Parts: sequence; C-alpha cells; structure tokens
Amino acid sequence: MSKSLSTSSDKAGFPPGALVHVGDIHQTQTTITLIHYDKEGVHECEITSVESIGEYVKKNTVTWVIIEGLSDADLIARIGELFTIHPLVLEDILTTHQRPKFEEYDHYLYVVLKSLMASSEVFTINNEQISILVLENLVLSFKEKSDKLFSPVKQRIQTSKGHFRSMGSDYLTYAILDIIVDNLFILIDSLDEITLTLEDHLISEESTPLTLITIQKLKRELIHIRKYVSPLRELLAGMLRSDSELIQEHTKIYLRDVSDHAIRIIESIESYQNILAGLLDIYISSISNKMNEVMKVLTVFASIFIPLTFIAGIYGMNFTDMPELHWRWGYPAIWGVFILITMVLLIYFRKKKWI
Amino acid sequence: MSKSLSTSSDKAGFPPGALVHVGDIHQTQTTITLIHYDKEGVHECEITSVESIGEYVKKNTVTWVIIEGLSDADLIARIGELFTIHPLVLEDILTTHQRPKFEEYDHYLYVVLKSLMASSEVFTINNEQISILVLENLVLSFKEKSDKLFSPVKQRIQTSKGHFRSMGSDYLTYAILDIIVDNLFILIDSLDEITLTLEDHLISEESTPLTLITIQKLKRELIHIRKYVSPLRELLAGMLRSDSELIQEHTKIYLRDVSDHAIRIIESIESYQNILAGLLDIYISSISNKMNEVMKVLTVFASIFIPLTFIAGIYGMNFTDMPELHWRWGYPAIWGVFILITMVLLIYFRKKKWI
Amino acid sequence: MSKSLSTSSDKAGFPPGALVHVGDIHQTQTTITLIHYDKEGVHECEITSVESIGEYVKKNTVTWVIIEGLSDADLIARIGELFTIHPLVLEDILTTHQRPKFEEYDHYLYVVLKSLMASSEVFTINNEQISILVLENLVLSFKEKSDKLFSPVKQRIQTSKGHFRSMGSDYLTYAILDIIVDNLFILIDSLDEITLTLEDHLISEESTPLTLITIQKLKRELIHIRKYVSPLRELLAGMLRSDSELIQEHTKIYLRDVSDHAIRIIESIESYQNILAGLLDIYISSISNKMNEVMKVLTVFASIFIPLTFIAGIYGMNFTDMPELHWRWGYPAIWGVFILITMVLLIYFRKKKWI
Amino acid sequence: MSKSLSTSSDKAGFPPGALVHVGDIHQTQTTITLIHYDKEGVHECEITSVESIGEYVKKNTVTWVIIEGLSDADLIARIGELFTIHPLVLEDILTTHQRPKFEEYDHYLYVVLKSLMASSEVFTINNEQISILVLENLVLSFKEKSDKLFSPVKQRIQTSKGHFRSMGSDYLTYAILDIIVDNLFILIDSLDEITLTLEDHLISEESTPLTLITIQKLKRELIHIRKYVSPLRELLAGMLRSDSELIQEHTKIYLRDVSDHAIRIIESIESYQNILAGLLDIYISSISNKMNEVMKVLTVFASIFIPLTFIAGIYGMNFTDMPELHWRWGYPAIWGVFILITMVLLIYFRKKKWI
Amino acid sequence: MSKSLSTSSDKAGFPPGALVHVGDIHQTQTTITLIHYDKEGVHECEITSVESIGEYVKKNTVTWVIIEGLSDADLIARIGELFTIHPLVLEDILTTHQRPKFEEYDHYLYVVLKSLMASSEVFTINNEQISILVLENLVLSFKEKSDKLFSPVKQRIQTSKGHFRSMGSDYLTYAILDIIVDNLFILIDSLDEITLTLEDHLISEESTPLTLITIQKLKRELIHIRKYVSPLRELLAGMLRSDSELIQEHTKIYLRDVSDHAIRIIESIESYQNILAGLLDIYISSISNKMNEVMKVLTVFASIFIPLTFIAGIYGMNFTDMPELHWRWGYPAIWGVFILITMVLLIYFRKKKWI
Repeated sequence: MSKSLSTSSDKAGFPPGALVHVGDIHQTQTTITLIHYDKEGVHECEITSVESIGEYVKKNTVTWVIIEGLSDADLIARIGELFTIHPLVLEDILTTHQRPKFEEYDHYLYVVLKSLMASSEVFTINNEQISILVLENLVLSFKEKSDKLFSPVKQRIQTSKGHFRSMGSDYLTYAILDIIVDNLFILIDSLDEITLTLEDHLISEESTPLTLITIQKLKRELIHIRKYVSPLRELLAGMLRSDSELIQEHTKIYLRDVSDHAIRIIESIESYQNILAGLLDIYISSISNKMNEVMKVLTVFASIFIPLTFIAGIYGMNFTDMPELHWRWGYPAIWGVFILITMVLLIYFRKKKWI
Repeated sequence: MSKSLSTSSDKAGFPPGALVHVGDIHQTQTTITLIHYDKEGVHECEITSVESIGEYVKKNTVTWVIIEGLSDADLIARIGELFTIHPLVLEDILTTHQRPKFEEYDHYLYVVLKSLMASSEVFTINNEQISILVLENLVLSFKEKSDKLFSPVKQRIQTSKGHFRSMGSDYLTYAILDIIVDNLFILIDSLDEITLTLEDHLISEESTPLTLITIQKLKRELIHIRKYVSPLRELLAGMLRSDSELIQEHTKIYLRDVSDHAIRIIESIESYQNILAGLLDIYISSISNKMNEVMKVLTVFASIFIPLTFIAGIYGMNFTDMPELHWRWGYPAIWGVFILITMVLLIYFRKKKWI
Repeated sequence: MSKSLSTSSDKAGFPPGALVHVGDIHQTQTTITLIHYDKEGVHECEITSVESIGEYVKKNTVTWVIIEGLSDADLIARIGELFTIHPLVLEDILTTHQRPKFEEYDHYLYVVLKSLMASSEVFTINNEQISILVLENLVLSFKEKSDKLFSPVKQRIQTSKGHFRSMGSDYLTYAILDIIVDNLFILIDSLDEITLTLEDHLISEESTPLTLITIQKLKRELIHIRKYVSPLRELLAGMLRSDSELIQEHTKIYLRDVSDHAIRIIESIESYQNILAGLLDIYISSISNKMNEVMKVLTVFASIFIPLTFIAGIYGMNFTDMPELHWRWGYPAIWGVFILITMVLLIYFRKKKWI
Repeated sequence: MSKSLSTSSDKAGFPPGALVHVGDIHQTQTTITLIHYDKEGVHECEITSVESIGEYVKKNTVTWVIIEGLSDADLIARIGELFTIHPLVLEDILTTHQRPKFEEYDHYLYVVLKSLMASSEVFTINNEQISILVLENLVLSFKEKSDKLFSPVKQRIQTSKGHFRSMGSDYLTYAILDIIVDNLFILIDSLDEITLTLEDHLISEESTPLTLITIQKLKRELIHIRKYVSPLRELLAGMLRSDSELIQEHTKIYLRDVSDHAIRIIESIESYQNILAGLLDIYISSISNKMNEVMKVLTVFASIFIPLTFIAGIYGMNFTDMPELHWRWGYPAIWGVFILITMVLLIYFRKKKWI
Repeated sequence: MSKSLSTSSDKAGFPPGALVHVGDIHQTQTTITLIHYDKEGVHECEITSVESIGEYVKKNTVTWVIIEGLSDADLIARIGELFTIHPLVLEDILTTHQRPKFEEYDHYLYVVLKSLMASSEVFTINNEQISILVLENLVLSFKEKSDKLFSPVKQRIQTSKGHFRSMGSDYLTYAILDIIVDNLFILIDSLDEITLTLEDHLISEESTPLTLITIQKLKRELIHIRKYVSPLRELLAGMLRSDSELIQEHTKIYLRDVSDHAIRIIESIESYQNILAGLLDIYISSISNKMNEVMKVLTVFASIFIPLTFIAGIYGMNFTDMPELHWRWGYPAIWGVFILITMVLLIYFRKKKWI
C-alpha cells in the first residue's frame, strides 16, 4: 500500500478512501515528533509507535504530534483507526494535491492548506501540504517533509511562560496557521522586488525578449500562488463561522487576525497581477518603439541617398549630347545640388523629429 | 419513434416530452446490464426485457441497471412507465445536449452530466452524456455507448468485501460520479503537458503560425470543457443541500469529496485559460520581435551600401572636368572613403545593438 | 391614437400609460385568431370584435387569443378595459422595445419576451416582441406581425389527444415559451456554423479585411442576442418562484425545463463571445505574420542586390588609373565576386529561415 | 454663506452639514415656482418667500415647489428649518456632485439623481443634479438651473383630467423620475447614431487618427453616463422595497416601470461599451492593414527595380574586356532580360496577391 | 521592544500580539495631545503620562487623545493595559500595513484606515495609518507622524458652539473619518488633472515613450489607492450595521454620508482605471500611426527614385550599339521620361492619400 503515484490523475480508478500516497515523494522516512505541554512545562520527544500517543492526551494539557513524511500509508491508517478519523480525511492527508479547506466532523476538525516558500532558484516556489487534525487536547499535524517550518511555534511554546501554554489545541492550530500565512508575506516581498526590477528595466529601455519570459513566468507563479492562497479566505471564514466546541470564542479573535492577513495577501496578489499586465503593455510598446527607431534610420538614409544616386546616375549616362557635362562649372554645380538636396531633406526630417 | 436528430435545434417544434433521441447516434444496439448486490454477494447479467428489473429490487440490496445506447426510445419509454418517471426526464435522458444538473422528484432523483475523455486525436475531447436515476434500492444509469467507463466501479463492487456492498443506492451514485470526476484529472494532466510544450516552444522562439492555431484550439477546448464541468459545482451543491431520503447523511461526506475535486478541476481550467492568454501575448510579441530583426538586417544593409553606391555613382559621372578622376591616388583614396564610411556606420549600428 | 413612433426616445414626454404604438410598424392590419379547446375538441376561428372573447371563456376549457399586428392601439385599449388590465401593461404591449420580464398582477400574469429568428440575410436577426397575458382559462398573446411562429403549438393542440388539451392556460403559456426558446437553438446552430467557417478561413490564412468585419458583426449580433436572451433566466426564475394560482405546481416542472434550455443558450452565447475574441487575436496576428513575410521578401531582395549594385558602381567609375579594369580576367573575376556574395547571403538568409 | 466652491475637494475641511453651495454655479438667480393641484383644478405661481409654502399644503391636494438655482444657500437653510429637514440632506442638495441615491427619513423621503442631456456640442453631456424631497401632500424639487426639463410634467398636470390630479405626491415623484429616465433614451439614441457612423467609417476604411479620438471620447462619455445612471437601479429598488407610507402600493407599479426603463438603459450602455471595444479593435487592425499595403508597394517597387538597376550597373562597368558590350544584339538582349525579370517578378507578386 | 521592522514579512516568526512597531519609522518622538470638551468648553493640552488620561474621562464629556508617532511600543502597551485593549488590536495599531477594517469588542470599537495625501513629488502618494479606538466618552487616535491632518476637526470643536460639542465620542469618530475621506477628493482631483493633461498630449500627438511610463505609474498609483480605499466601503457598512451602544442611531446618518462619499471615490477610481486603459490604447495606436507615416515617406521616396535610377542606369551602360544615345533629342527625351514617371507616381500616391 505504500506505492506512490505522482499526479492525481494516476489515482483515477482507485476506490475512494484508498490509502495510497498520491504526490511527489519528498522523503521516504517518516518521523513522528510529540510535544506535550501545559502551564507547568513542555516535554518534546520522538516516538515510533503511534499507539503511544493516547497515553499523553489529558485534560488541561495539549499534545501536538508532528508527522513528517507521508510515504508510510500504514502509519496514517493506524492513526485513523486510533482516533476514528473518516477514511476520506485520511485519503486527503495522503493526497498532496488538496485544495485548502476546513471540514468539521463530530469529534475533530480537519484543516488542509499549502505552505508556500520561495526556493533558492528564481521563480520557483516550493509548496508543501500541511494537514491539521484538531481533537480535544490533541493536534495532529502532517507535513510532506522535515523542515524548519514549525520551529517558531515550537520556540514560542518553549519560551512563552503564561499565555500560550494556558491555551487549548485551538490556539495551537491558530499558531500553526499564523506561521504559514506569515511566510506568504516573505513571498509577496520577493514578488515586489522582482516586479520593481522589471519595471526599472522596462523604463530604462533595457528590455530583452527575456524580459517577456520573466513576465510570463511571474504571471504563471502568481496564478499558482493564487490558486493555493485564495481558498484560505473561505477556509478561515469557515473556522470563524464554526460553532464547534473545539474552537473557543476567544481564539476566534486570533483567527480573525489570520483571516485579515490572508485577505491582505490575496489583494496583494491581485495587485501584482494588474501591475504585471501593465508591464506587459510597456514591453509590447517598447518593441514597437524600437521598430519605429529602426525604420526612421532606414528612411532617413534611403530618402537622402536614393535621390542623390539618381542624379549621379543621370550624369553617368552616355548620351552624346549632354551639354551640362561640358559646362565650366558643371561638376562643382552638381556638388552644390547634392549638398542642397541633403540640407533640405535633413531639415525636413529634423522638423518631423526623426533625427 | 426511433428517429434520431443530430442537433438540438432539429427538435424545435417537437412537443415537450416527445421521446425522440436527439444527438449523434454512437451506437444502434442497446444493451442492458443488471448488477444486483448485497453484503452477501454480487450477481451480474444481461437482460433483454426491462420488465424483469422489478423482480430484483428488494430491501437491503442494490440493483444497478446500466443501459448503453440510447437509440431505442421505446425502451426508455417503457422504463419510464414502469417506474413512473416524468416524461421530461425521459426526454432529457434521450437528448444528449443536456447541461449537467440535479433534479429531485417525489420518489426518485435525476442526475445528468458529461463524461469527458481525451480522444486519441490531439485536441479532441469525446463527451458522453451520463444520466442517472436514483430510486430506492435501484440505480438506473444511461450511457450513449458501450465503453469501459464504469469498469472500476463494477470491479470495486466485486472486490470490496464489506464497505461498498453494505451501502445503499446513494453510495453507488457517488461511486459513479467519483469515477467521472476522476477521469477529468487525466484531461487536466494532458492539458498541462500541452501547455508546457507550447510554452517551451515559445520561449525557445521556435513558434510558427501553427503555434497560434494550437493556442486557439486549446482555448476552444477549455471553453467547451468548462461549459460541461462548471455546472458540476452547482449539481453537487444541490445534492449536498438535498433533504431527500434517498441521500443519507453519511453519504454526503463522500459527495462533498467529489465536490471538492470538481471545484479543483474548475479552478485548474481557469488557471489554464489565464496561462494560455499569457502564451498568446508571448506569441504576438515574438512576431513583433522577428519583424524587428528583419528590419534591422534591411536597415543595416541598406544604410551602409546606399551611401557607398552614391559615391561610386559620383565618380561614374561623365563630366569633362572632374579633377579627382585624374589624381594619382584618386582610386585608392576612394576605396579609403568606402572603408571609412563602412567602419563608421558599423560602429554606429553596433552601438545601437542592431548588429 | 394609431400614430407609431420608431424609437423609444420619441416617446419621452408622453404620459405613462399613453397607448401609442412605439416601434417599427411591421404590419398595419391587425388580425385576431381565437382557439378554444378542451379535452373534447378544438375550435379555431378569426374574430373581429374583442367583446366576443368573453363568451368563450369557461371553466375546464382554455381560450387562446392571438392578436397579430399592434398598430390598432384602440383595440388593445378595449381589451384592457374588458379584462381590467393595468394601463402600464397595455403600454408595454404596444412599446416593442421591452426588456423580457414577468410580472404578477392580482388576476393575471404578464410575460413579455423576444422571439429571435435568423433572417435570410446574413448577420441579420429579426426580433419580434411577444406579449402574453395569462388569465384564468384564457391566454392572450400579442405579436407584432403574422408569421408561422405559433404553428407548432397550434398543431400540438390539434393532434395531441389527451395530455395537452387537459392542461390549463399555464401549460399553454409554457408551450408558447418553449417554442420561442427552442427557436433560439436554431440561431445558436447558425452561429456555430459561421464561427467554424471563420475559423477555417483564418487557419488557412485566407483572411481578408472582410474577415474582421464579419467578426465584428458577429460580435455585435451576439451582444444584441444576449441582451434579449439573458433576461429570460430571471423571467423564468420569477415564474418558478411565483405562488400565483395561475401557475400550477405540475406545470413548473415544464417551466424548469424551459429554464434549463434558456441557461444553456445563455452559456452558449458566452462561449461564442469567447471564441470570437480568440478569432480576433488570430486575425490580428495573421496581419502581423503577413507583414513579416512582405518584409522578408523586401529584405532579401534589397540585401542581396544593393551590395552587388555598389560593386558594379565601383567599376563604373571613371578614374584614370583603375588597374582591375585592364586585368585579363577582371570581368570574369567580378562575376565570380557577384556570385560569391549572392551565395553567401542566400545561405545566411536560409539559415535565418527567411527564404 | 453664498460662496460657491467648484470641486468637491474644495469642501474638504468644512464641517459636515455646512450649507455652502459646492459645484459650478449655473445660475445666480433662484426662482421658486409653486404648483398646487387637486382633482378640481391647478394653480401655478411664482413665490418669493418660502414661508408661504406652508399655507398651500392641505389634505387631498398636492403642492409641488420647484426651486431653480442653488446659489442662495440661506433659502435652502430656511426650507430646512420650515420642514425640519436633516442638515446633511440640505448639504447634499447644495453639493451638486452627489451619487444618485434614495434615503428615507421619518416624515420625508429624499431622492437625488442626475438629469443628463446631450448638449449641442458633440460628445458633451450636460448633467444637472435634481433633488426631490417628498413630504405628505408636498414635493420640493431642487434644480441647478432653469430649463424646460419639467415642462412635460407640468403639462400633464394641466391637461390630464382625472387620473394624475387624483394621485398623491408619490405619483408626482414618479412622474418626475419618469421624465428624467425617458430623457436618457434620447441620449442612448444619439450614442447609437454616432456608433453606427463610426462603424461605417471604419468598415469603409476611411478611418483617420481622429476616429480613434472619437472612440476614446465616446468611451469616456459612456464611463461618465454609467457613473450617473447605474446607481438608478439601486435607487429605484430602494423605493420599491420601501415601506414608507409616503409611497403607496399602487404607485409602485409605476416605479417598477421606471426601474425597468433604467435597467434597459444600463444594459444599453454596457452594450455600447462592448461595441466600442470592438470598434477599437477594427481601428487598430486597420492601421496594420494600411501599413501592410504601404509595405507591399515598397516591396514590389524595390524588388523589381533593384535587380534591374544592378544589371544595368554591370554593363555600365568600364572593364576593358566585356564581350557582351560588343555583341550585335547585346543591347536588345539586355532589354529582353529586363522585361523577362520584370515579368517573372510581377507573376510572383501576383501569385502572392500583393498586386 | 522599540525595534522597528520595515516590511511585514520581517515579522514572520514573531509571536502574535508581540508589540513591535512594524513599518517605516516616520518619527521617533511620540507626542500625546489630549482634548477634553463638553457643551461648556474645550481644554487642550499635551500630556506625557498616559495614566493621566483616566482623570479626564467623565460622563457627558468627550476626551480625545491623539498619539502621534508609533515608535514607543511601551507606551502603546501601557495604554492597552489601562483600557484593557486586546493584544492583537495593539499589534494592529503598531503594524502600519493594515487593511482598513472595523472591529467590535465588548467595551470598545477599533477602526483602522489609511490617510492618503498627494505628496509634492509627482505620482507619489503618502499614506499614513490612522487607528481609532472608540470607548465610552473617550476616543484614542493613533497616527504615524505629526501633521495637520486633524486640524480641521480640532478647529470645529473650538468654533462650533452647540452641535459638535453636545455629541458623543461616536460623532468625533465620524468627524475624523469624514476629514480623511474628504482628503481623498483632493487626490481624485489631482488624478483628474493629470489624466486630462495626458489625454491632451496624446490627442495632439505629442506622446513620447515617457507618456507610457506616466500612464503606467498612474495605473500603479490607482491600484495602490484602490487597495487602501475599497475596504472603506465594507468598513463603513460594518459601522452602519453595528448594534454597539457606542454608535448612536442619529450618528449613523452622518456615517452613511461618509459611506456615500467613499463609494463615490471608489467609483471614480474605477472610472480613471478605465480611462487610463483607453489612453494606453491611444498611445499604442499612435506608435503604429507614426510608423505608418515613416513607412509612407520611405515608400514614396524609394518608389519614385528607384525606377528613375534604373533608367539612368540603362543609359549609363557601355553597349557599343545603343541608338538612343545618339538621337538628336535623346537626352531631353529621357528627362521627359523622368518627369512623366515622377508625375504618374505622384498622382498615384496622392490618390492613395500617402502624400
């Protein structure tokens, strides 16, 4: 059952709820980290057997289990049995092409969303699917790979004395969502930088065909980010509307704050899409402007020298009787004509602002 | 009554509820497959008389009748009588230009939607109309032709021991919808591939007028797919909102899952439409860029040689008194002038980055 | 009172409810056809006095009065008095620039919509305003001119034995709406044909400036059709929502069917608008492509012959001392140079794929 | 207090409710016309003191006060005191940059909208703000200037015997709104005319740069008209929804009629915006088409004569040993070559459809 | 705690509610101005300790505290403690990248919005975040820097005898919102001016590449302004819907007025975006028009002189037997040919309207 399929279409034909990991495998090893805390203290350890989670869950404490790596479908299935999670939820956890959403079940909540991170390569954004199961006094979070994403949350649990550790599993959920949404601001900032650089290039007329490709790649990235980010609005609105006992009223103020941030990010993305469309217009006009310039040079050169060449051609003819040829000042006169025509045309083109 | 009309406009003038097959005839033979199952076992057979269906329908079992081929309008009419189906529903089943929709009637539900499949030819998508009548313990599904579409569902009924066979006709309906929606992901994947290939062509500047036609054909396909797919959102929302006793609460969790998939597909289609619009922009700019290049070559050639030709023309004139012609170094000097002018212009064009 | 004003602005300043025919006069003669039917039989006759309508209206029968030609405003006024119709409704019937709508009054319903028909001329769509007053056991329908539009309905009344003639005035209304909406499918089909022809022209690069005008005319037609068709959605939704006793529940199933058709047509129109936008893009690119081709021919010709002409010009100069002129193989050598330069440039342009 | 500020930004910093006229002053003189009517008769007079209005207001009669010219802020203030109108409403009456809106207050209704009139200059639309205060048996209407706008309403009061004069102040309000909305149809008709002229110009390829400016000016006008007209939908919907006793049920049928007209106008404006966008596309393509034509002429001329000139250049060279020059039929032969090349190229260009 | 982070992404990782100033520091000094007023009189003073605020707050008076400069996070924290403000609200006050919003809490309201001001540099708009906390008889307003923004409000408190000073803290809030929204009209006016100037430039064909950059910068500015302004609609709708006791019914009439202004500004911005899009179209067409003109000059020059040069070339050939060369009127005749060809071509180009 641990076979992994790389695109969601590969799964067509599988029964619903079939626990197969669908998505790129980032990591073959699955690690389970357990953090248990209450007002008094924090205890963090790695566990190997999911059955041992149950021992930790107690009233007035919060147990946070971080599962990193999704290749071990059996493990997910065992967790599902242990906490009676619906098979479709388990399937969603394993299929890393989920649209961000929030679902309420009898005794637990399910949140799935994407953590987006600008990678070191330009225009490449890594996305990782984060699934969160919120139960009473227990939060199970599933990540595709091991990374530092949750470090700030862990640190806050360690350092914050009173507040954080006295809150329930809903507050922990909020903290996780908050860190994921805050990371999006970093992305937005890098977009801002790239867009400004592009605009500078275009305005200083240093655009190359590469500029267009950059614009297109940015557009594509924005379309992808938007696909992952815009459902957050609905997700958080769902959590705010929810009357589940697992989300307490005083936590909703915090969730509303995350929701505000998410809306701000969505609006920023829309702004960048508009700005990019504007940059494209500048680029296309700049091509036309350049062609105009090329055409002007050609026109000026051709329009001046073609008539002159014609006149020279006249006096290169071999007619027997061409009196001008034998005039005393014929040759100097023709030079005068050349210069005169050139002057007139230069003034004409100058007046037209072509030179 | 078995006359078939190929476009829906041919039907203008027919009374409503007239049972005539409207649509292309894919198949003249109509076959009826009956699958009867409960927890204990499965029984599959072909039947010829629709009247025998009634014998199978029993409590705690599910009878699934698959009618393939819609040319036999009499047969559909007999089914309609047998299960007291509204004539308009029967007409909708026979008219294969339906917009996907969900309708509730007193003792049955009617679902009609399109199964889309990428055909072997490029940019051609086969669509087949699937109508589903959900009654108590009975599902009647109507297909335009015989194909392997329902095979995975049949297989699941055969293999899945406990779960599937213990569920009712609503779960079977879900399984059919699920397989149709999952097939759309294959379509989306092939779109993804074509789009990426196109983008690569455009970026490597290998675009031809054919590229434009490909973009247009893809756009057209997307418009068609969207027309068939976007009503699915509403269709599934209708099923989820429905308070008919034929859809049980625990099945709705599964329908919600299909709904999530449908929304994901609709959003993907929108993304591809945006990306294609971007590709079109690149294509149009690439034409301009190419023209720029052509113009530069012309301008460089013409601007260098036209002045030179003029100078050569001067000394081809036949004036009696042209002292330069008789100078000792006249001819070499004129070569010097030619070379000088060429150099100056080459430097000028190099500075303008035209060569 | 029979004066006719051709645009609705001509009516600015008239008191509301003033019964003046506003619109083009298609027909000066007004004819009144009365069809009276019940389960037992049908009776059709032409009447001249509207006062005689009242004699026909009886329980369990349906009387359908078809008024063709709207120039006789007095007649409409008399009908208004007879059946106590609101003056504004009468005004709407006479003003043939109505937006399709549905209005409920105490003892009658008012439906006004447009019947669109492709005319024999290309890109010209005839529209006719159809007003329907639905009273108990009585339907009054107003048309701008005499045509065959209602023939299929009349025929169905004649031929259908049981069903149609046992239904009430609401079903007759449905039948009229159904025939009008079904006619739209013919329009859509002709659009489909024109669009495909256009696309073929564009793809085979046979486009002319006329192509653009065709696209624009089609766009314009689509805008007009949409204006008339899109309010149908709201109109039919209004009828479905209505709790008037004049529309019975079992007729609503039929109206929902018309509504589905209307939505399908609206979506088709939107699709065609998108496809046309795509065709315009192809057209514009095809112009650029053609210019590219023209430019290439010019560039190839000019770039090859201008340098050659220059060289010929050199040896046309009359310098006293040009040694090459007197070389033994001078002339053949210069031909060699001509051929060499031509070859090099041809290879260069071939490599650039310009020839 | 009679100072007038010309743009609304000039008012930034003034306290709210400060009664200063903001807007262009069309008229310095303020005139007050009072029309008092009931079933029995009509009395019209000019009054100078607003205090005398109160004497006229009686049950079962309607008093209509028309204030033309808004420069006398004191007068407005006195009216406000007399009928206890909210200061913000008075401010809105004086500030002639209002967005059309409908507001309900305890004992009166406030309607403000724009009357648009095509001016004698092309593309210039005069707008005038009309404020209407509806009280019991009293309608106060405020106009920026004296014009004939209300004449048709006055005339209807005079001429209509029974109907109009037996209705209340709400019907008078309707009549005012009706005349303003009907005037918009005149505007729409003139738009139609200009658009058709433009389209004819473009199709007959007589477009000039002026065409573009006309399109842009029309676009701008449409944007402005839309800004003033589209809030009418909401305004009238508000009046229809209102449960104020000042609007009686049987008047709402008339308001619904105005609402229908307003929606029709809004949709027409949207249509024209779409059609204009299409015209712009034609214009831009027509520029490209013209350039194509220019290029073809250049290419044909250059491609024919440049090779010929080269050949002539060859035999203008002064090599000692050019045998062709001395051939018997050399000169006629070269003419044959000239004609042959020309023919070949002409056939080539004809095949390419360039000539 | 007074560290300042310049972009919101810098804050990613900080715990929620961490009181750090995020945003550009406009001012390091924080000043606190307190204005205390009731019907009787006004008292204004600078205070240094926030603890002294409490002494002023009394029934039937309003205390307005203006905090200018946000670098002193400790001060904000102390205010939060004093009036039990939620930590997230304090965080929002300090983070000057907030989306305008309105939030209700148990005993206070929180409003945050942007004050936009055109700066002295062209196309640069300064934005300042204004946070307002509305408590009973107390308004706390937070500004990023000291400026004259609130002067008109202060002045109105001083001068207005009766009205203003008899209203509560909600009216003061309204007055603050009103002044901020009114300032936007100044911005809109300057946009109007720039747009008109641009349009004039474009129509008089004096456009330069700079024009395009101006259009793009304006577009960008509009996108930014819209981002800050469009949430005002929702913000004010929220205040109008609110049933908090801190906003009295008679103040809502004033808020509705501000809301109307905000909607008008949003619609203006949309209009300008449309008009700018039109200007861009003109600009792009003007480039094409210019190129057309350049091409025509080239074509006219080349098409006239290239054939002439060819003819001159013919008679420059050195064939032994060229009878024309020796004709009596050969040379004048060739001049006749030159003039004839020129005339014919000039007439041809004139007919094509190229010259």
